Amino acid sequence: MSLDGGPRRTERNRAMGVTKYHRITLDTFHYKWSRFHKPVLSVKDGDTVTFEINDVGSWQLNKDSTHADVMTYDPAKGYPLAGPVSIEGAKPGDALLVEVVEVDIADFGWSFIQPGFGLLDEFRKPFLYKWNLENKKSASFENGIEVPLRPFCGVLGVAPRTRGFTEVAPPGRHGGNMDIRHLTAGSWVKIPVWVDGALFSTGDVHAAMGDGEVCGTAIECAGSATIRFGIEKEAGLGFPQFFTKGDKKPERGYFTATGIGPDLMKATKDSVRNMLGYLTKTYGLTAEEAYVLCSVTADVRVHEIVDRPNWVVGTMISRDIFPH
Amino acid sequence: MSLDGGPRRTERNRAMGVTKYHRITLDTFHYKWSRFHKPVLSVKDGDTVTFEINDVGSWQLNKDSTHADVMTYDPAKGYPLAGPVSIEGAKPGDALLVEVVEVDIADFGWSFIQPGFGLLDEFRKPFLYKWNLENKKSASFENGIEVPLRPFCGVLGVAPRTRGFTEVAPPGRHGGNMDIRHLTAGSWVKIPVWVDGALFSTGDVHAAMGDGEVCGTAIECAGSATIRFGIEKEAGLGFPQFFTKGDKKPERGYFTATGIGPDLMKATKDSVRNMLGYLTKTYGLTAEEAYVLCSVTADVRVHEIVDRPNWVVGTMISRDIFPH
Repeated sequence: MSLDGGPRRTERNRAMGVTKYHRITLDTFHYKWSRFHKPVLSVKDGDTVTFEINDVGSWQLNKDSTHADVMTYDPAKGYPLAGPVSIEGAKPGDALLVEVVEVDIADFGWSFIQPGFGLLDEFRKPFLYKWNLENKKSASFENGIEVPLRPFCGVLGVAPRTRGFTEVAPPGRHGGNMDIRHLTAGSWVKIPVWVDGALFSTGDVHAAMGDGEVCGTAIECAGSATIRFGIEKEAGLGFPQFFTKGDKKPERGYFTATGIGPDLMKATKDSVRNMLGYLTKTYGLTAEEAYVLCSVTADVRVHEIVDRPNWVVGTMISRDIFPH
Repeated sequence: MSLDGGPRRTERNRAMGVTKYHRITLDTFHYKWSRFHKPVLSVKDGDTVTFEINDVGSWQLNKDSTHADVMTYDPAKGYPLAGPVSIEGAKPGDALLVEVVEVDIADFGWSFIQPGFGLLDEFRKPFLYKWNLENKKSASFENGIEVPLRPFCGVLGVAPRTRGFTEVAPPGRHGGNMDIRHLTAGSWVKIPVWVDGALFSTGDVHAAMGDGEVCGTAIECAGSATIRFGIEKEAGLGFPQFFTKGDKKPERGYFTATGIGPDLMKATKDSVRNMLGYLTKTYGLTAEEAYVLCSVTADVRVHEIVDRPNWVVGTMISRDIFPH
């Protein structure tokens, strides 16, 4: 959290031992984003919250479900979110620092193909795949294929600026349903704040997903996430940015700048611009140097391409290349 | 090369020790793709060729060049390709198997920003960055940043079906200027064949590049590439596919199916369809199972987004998940 001259207050609070631990249970959830949702909890910069999280379908699919049940799946019951949590002192223009401490998953998960949903239009039959997640490390698929489990929350977001109630499915400048598979335990994400207190919620636990989430679903499951909050004052952030943990050194891994929107080309440009802003500010590079550096060593990835109408593109750079 | 029931003849030829080694020197190169180029060499399935390769700018930029020289850079002198090599027995409908045995780089490299070229329109001044590649492992950038070198050939392709002469810059169903940074030593790529003998050429050595090549150039340099050829008869391949080598086990790494074209969304769909074709054929999955498997574990990446008008998208899946 102290990276790139970040949140000194957060660090001070932690050093002083004045941070607290909280828990939100499964029975506390809301649908849709809104600045009008009353916070279920108010926490301080530096506090930690464990969110118990219902599966994205609000228990519509379970171990007994069949392919046919995919057709009666009601999207209005989608995205029960745990929260919202108000973070004291967070103001519009700040960035909320969301550190993913831990993500746990239930023993059962599902994936479906629903005609008209997902990347490819040619799939016209409903299809349900049920996963046994008991071993927690990997899940068995057909024909001896074994899928590694890397749990994360598809939704990590704050209340958007808009008035009224907003659908959860499309991600945006408030984060939300970003479906970024890299946000596993040890990672952290910076999300622009739009309303006083930020009003953070999370949901949509995924046991595993590939960048893109091409069929429209990951391994969807219930679970819990433990998250520590911080605030970066007047961050001036346009789109979210995130850091992942290095395999060998936690302070290494990747830094990623996102671009989010309905056009893949524009989202890619926004993501690269977001990266250039970070590189020039953090490492004292000129815009030209930062652009060349991206070209020779940063990777463009499509984190999700199914949460209509907004796609999430990330430009990822290895933190190994930097001297500090 | 024996993966997924591949080229038995290639394996047999190698086992019989009848394969040969060839070399194409720096003075042998051509511009543009064409079925009318006379092959400089004719080789057999299983043969190996070392290609000496000029830098993408045909010596227009060197250690003495300045920012101003970027403005007089002549694109007509771009993409000198080593080749073409005719591979005996390759016919339209087959796939050419291109195994990258080794890629060597010169001691000097360059990257430029040219107004009107590259992903971002707001860069309006020419900019040249010169790289010292002497240590071969990494190259020093500004402010203590060190870029790891992972050499590959930006261009690996065959003559397209079209008559006449075709620009090299845009990649296509003939491979070509795919700028896939993953095609380092140990990887191999399958390219659809469009004319008798395939007429393979290579060029555009890159010492390092990120997926996207966002500013339009990588670390551009001269070098050489050693390539072993094989043929998969009647492969029925729409777009190229490639395998990378695993860090621990060479037979692991990633399998990637590409989609190439002027629309990022369609290229992504084509790339996923290419992957589904491979998964259903190779692992006996239904289309629905393959689609779900992609969603939960394959990654969508943008390999290049600057070789107007065609972008290259890859769907990458770890070979660790498969039983064999």
